[in-house]
Amino acid sequence: MNGAHSLIKTLADAGIEVCFSNPGTSEMHFVAALDAEPRLRAVLTLFEGVATGAADGYARMAGKPAATLLHLGCGLGNGLANLHNARKGKVPVLNIVGDHATFHVPFDAQLQSDIETVARNVSPGFVRTSASTEALCRDAVEAIAAARGLPGQVATLILPADVSWGEGGMPCPPPAPPAPQAADDATVEAIARAIRGGGKTAFLLGGQALREPALLAAARIAAQCDTHLFCEVFPTRLERGAGLPTPERIAYLAELAGVQLAGIDHLVLVDAKSPVSFFAYPGKPSDLVPEGCTVHTLATPAQDAAASLDKLAAALGAAQAAPALQPAMRPARPRGRLTAAKVCKAVGHLLPERAILIDEAITSGLLLGTMTAGCPRHDLLTLTGGAIGQALPNAVGAAIACPDRPVLALVGDGSAMYTPQALWTMARERLDVTAIVFNNASYSVLNVELERVGADAAPGPKARSQLALRDPVLDFCRLAQGMGVHAARADTAEAFCKALEYALANPGPHLIEAVVPEALGGAKRRLLPWLLRTLPSLPPPLRRALKRRIAP
Amino acid sequence: MNGAHSLIKTLADAGIEVCFSNPGTSEMHFVAALDAEPRLRAVLTLFEGVATGAADGYARMAGKPAATLLHLGCGLGNGLANLHNARKGKVPVLNIVGDHATFHVPFDAQLQSDIETVARNVSPGFVRTSASTEALCRDAVEAIAAARGLPGQVATLILPADVSWGEGGMPCPPPAPPAPQAADDATVEAIARAIRGGGKTAFLLGGQALREPALLAAARIAAQCDTHLFCEVFPTRLERGAGLPTPERIAYLAELAGVQLAGIDHLVLVDAKSPVSFFAYPGKPSDLVPEGCTVHTLATPAQDAAASLDKLAAALGAAQAAPALQPAMRPARPRGRLTAAKVCKAVGHLLPERAILIDEAITSGLLLGTMTAGCPRHDLLTLTGGAIGQALPNAVGAAIACPDRPVLALVGDGSAMYTPQALWTMARERLDVTAIVFNNASYSVLNVELERVGADAAPGPKARSQLALRDPVLDFCRLAQGMGVHAARADTAEAFCKALEYALANPGPHLIEAVVPEALGGAKRRLLPWLLRTLPSLPPPLRRALKRRIAP
Repeated sequence: MNGAHSLIKTLADAGIEVCFSNPGTSEMHFVAALDAEPRLRAVLTLFEGVATGAADGYARMAGKPAATLLHLGCGLGNGLANLHNARKGKVPVLNIVGDHATFHVPFDAQLQSDIETVARNVSPGFVRTSASTEALCRDAVEAIAAARGLPGQVATLILPADVSWGEGGMPCPPPAPPAPQAADDATVEAIARAIRGGGKTAFLLGGQALREPALLAAARIAAQCDTHLFCEVFPTRLERGAGLPTPERIAYLAELAGVQLAGIDHLVLVDAKSPVSFFAYPGKPSDLVPEGCTVHTLATPAQDAAASLDKLAAALGAAQAAPALQPAMRPARPRGRLTAAKVCKAVGHLLPERAILIDEAITSGLLLGTMTAGCPRHDLLTLTGGAIGQALPNAVGAAIACPDRPVLALVGDGSAMYTPQALWTMARERLDVTAIVFNNASYSVLNVELERVGADAAPGPKARSQLALRDPVLDFCRLAQGMGVHAARADTAEAFCKALEYALANPGPHLIEAVVPEALGGAKRRLLPWLLRTLPSLPPPLRRALKRRIAP
Repeated sequence: MNGAHSLIKTLADAGIEVCFSNPGTSEMHFVAALDAEPRLRAVLTLFEGVATGAADGYARMAGKPAATLLHLGCGLGNGLANLHNARKGKVPVLNIVGDHATFHVPFDAQLQSDIETVARNVSPGFVRTSASTEALCRDAVEAIAAARGLPGQVATLILPADVSWGEGGMPCPPPAPPAPQAADDATVEAIARAIRGGGKTAFLLGGQALREPALLAAARIAAQCDTHLFCEVFPTRLERGAGLPTPERIAYLAELAGVQLAGIDHLVLVDAKSPVSFFAYPGKPSDLVPEGCTVHTLATPAQDAAASLDKLAAALGAAQAAPALQPAMRPARPRGRLTAAKVCKAVGHLLPERAILIDEAITSGLLLGTMTAGCPRHDLLTLTGGAIGQALPNAVGAAIACPDRPVLALVGDGSAMYTPQALWTMARERLDVTAIVFNNASYSVLNVELERVGADAAPGPKARSQLALRDPVLDFCRLAQGMGVHAARADTAEAFCKALEYALANPGPHLIEAVVPEALGGAKRRLLPWLLRTLPSLPPPLRRALKRRIAP
């Protein structure tokens, strides 16, 4: 049995069912071995960023890693941005990166480069070049264990061509599944004491703490002890909708996040990082924890968030408390000229049960959270690492992980253009994805950021042109059709609703191009810096009301 | 003056005229400073691989670096593949990679990653994170010197946001231009002795040795001393056409290259690497130098190739020899059903004077070299590092470097899909580029490689589907139109010629989708392994005739 055959058997034995691939010559033995293993599905992508983003989306929904198959250092480079998102989201991914045969490396041929160096950026915890066919499957099992580890991570196994084609491969049994532990008694007791001690307490839930069991446990504590529940700014996977607790998502804008967190005395982290500003701004703090607030860690990402919250609930006598649950409600059907807010409203009006909602609409999606909060239960996947080009590939992976669930990916025009090739894989695999592209002809968030960073007051034409997606305006319908995806354009709310109803009623993929003005264009954008400065000094009721209009 | 302003002034003072950009928030001060410097043109791209590939193509034609502007580690990752091509081609590129503010780094925000680690893959010679606004311009000058150095390279300057927005920037004068030296007398004399000593001698010309002065010097030596001239397999920039010497390009297929190089006693490298196989194959050598052949280095990439060849010519008494020059000739106008060979023939039939020809048509472009050899003088840019997705971005850069010259980019369908976003920048900048996409609905070269690597004899349906770009077939006309580029489809030679004539007569950009069968499909592909095995044992005339049909 050659290395490739033994590796593929080892992957399948370990429960890896999908390989998102973009192979080259050094991966041909792996490709040739695919047909011998019916348990491993190979999904071809036209660009590595699609493969890695699909593996990320798959693992978020399947709860286990997929493999990627990439071609040397350049292929890994092309896949780096979405692997970064997976790393930041603690999502398990197993990269298999083909390399030249070991004896070919010293010749420094055209494609030779230092793959391990690149890999360390996204998989600092596990990078290994397999040295021999005999060692390959042991290496693979260690890589799988690392990927599925506590917490999940990106693991990179580099596969030299001769290790793949050599004989003597020995499949290995799968690694033991990870067994995360709950927080220890002392930690639970200390946090319980802090909560009982008074002061304003809030939980910041992230990672696994955003799934139903943990959410319910946290909501029981909140009901019993009058604490507040926050959700991290970019959740990997948030279970939400009617019947579930709705934690308040921390805002992307640090100024708003500061308002959200103001006055908290105890912040309890549950599988979440202490809140920091997404970017740095001149004269503004990066750390968003308010002064005087004590930060407690109930569960690290390596621990069992739900079990830890259950223990804390028991310690607080909240085990039987009735959690506050989101009532069912939907916004009305929008009408008139299309805006980004109306797209979010229409999605809220129509979102089907058990949908998977992927949000990479950085400014246009501002009201998505509000508009869908009371929809039927669904999952929300977001831009965990801030590396744009995630939504369309994530949708590929999520749809393959959950073939019986509708996937809606909302994405800005700028973001969509990083990985448009995902549309082709959606068409080829006949995935039930509806991609909604907000075409506002702008890197809209950068127009906001240009003002926030305090750069030169009046940007000139060259600066403005760097942020505009005009001249020419992109035509996403043609792009989608060029890749075999059904597409429709809408510039009224009526047309958008009709297109979305059609897409939801007929198996996908579909693309809807929503032609909208900038969500934070014109006066709103000019007002934003003033608003952000002013917000902290407003009376609390007004502050809350405004916050609800802006925060996710 | 803030850091960004001082940096941009320093770049412009050093003769950097173009910045290919894809900025984010951390680069906003750089963007805001653009309007203050009329000497620096900013060209927006929708994807970083377009920016880096454009910088590569620009520098190949302009003979000096452009800057890129990239957003943190993920932006650099997206640009890595085309930077790899630049590195392998010894092309000067100056990367400016924005980073979080220095004080923000410890907070490990969402976009935080180890940028230097990634950068080392493509710019091992110069990676620096500028530590202060005061030091920034000195760092930039060192980076520019490194990029333009001997030989050219990719230099990466990492620019933290606070170094960019901080006050106290001090523009620095440009670095001294590099002054490469000719080979020393002893080297020249030793090689002259070897050539005079008899045996079969050949020159392998690469890098700067493929430009007119060096080509002419080499051809004088060849005429005087009966030596052969080879060109490296993937030249960075080859000046060719009627009136210039035509060195024989080493074949991509190692088996063919072996035949080309067989029987050579002395191989003289001039700004070229000793020939090695592109990939490794089971049981086949990586080193293509025939046994018993002595390899001499006349000039390294750090030396002056033309001056070294002039010195050698003088030593050999060849300074006044008449070089063999390519006679003018063009193939006839092709007719009938379109094939890849007929596309190459049509290009040879119509190629305008002073064209820039970019070749990333890995199998479909097989006859491009033959068909254009006698065309009017032109430049040929090729896939120096083997990282696909180069042609369309290279075309952007070449067209900006040489606005008065027509650019033709020939690219396979698979390759085109790595960086299709380049089309939008072509439209926006109104570049005179004609992109010719060979749509054979296949990763055709991988079908060849699958057989060459000796993988399982009969690939199954899963393996075959990994190499097929079918179901759906891509529609490149719609893709181009979606990005504002005029497009036409051709499936006959007549339609292709008409489309090409239209494109050449009307300022671009244009895309022509050439619908063709695989160049090495069916019987040809099945015969290829046999042919490659058999070739060395054929009688020389037959071998030469066959070689001409297959080699580039």
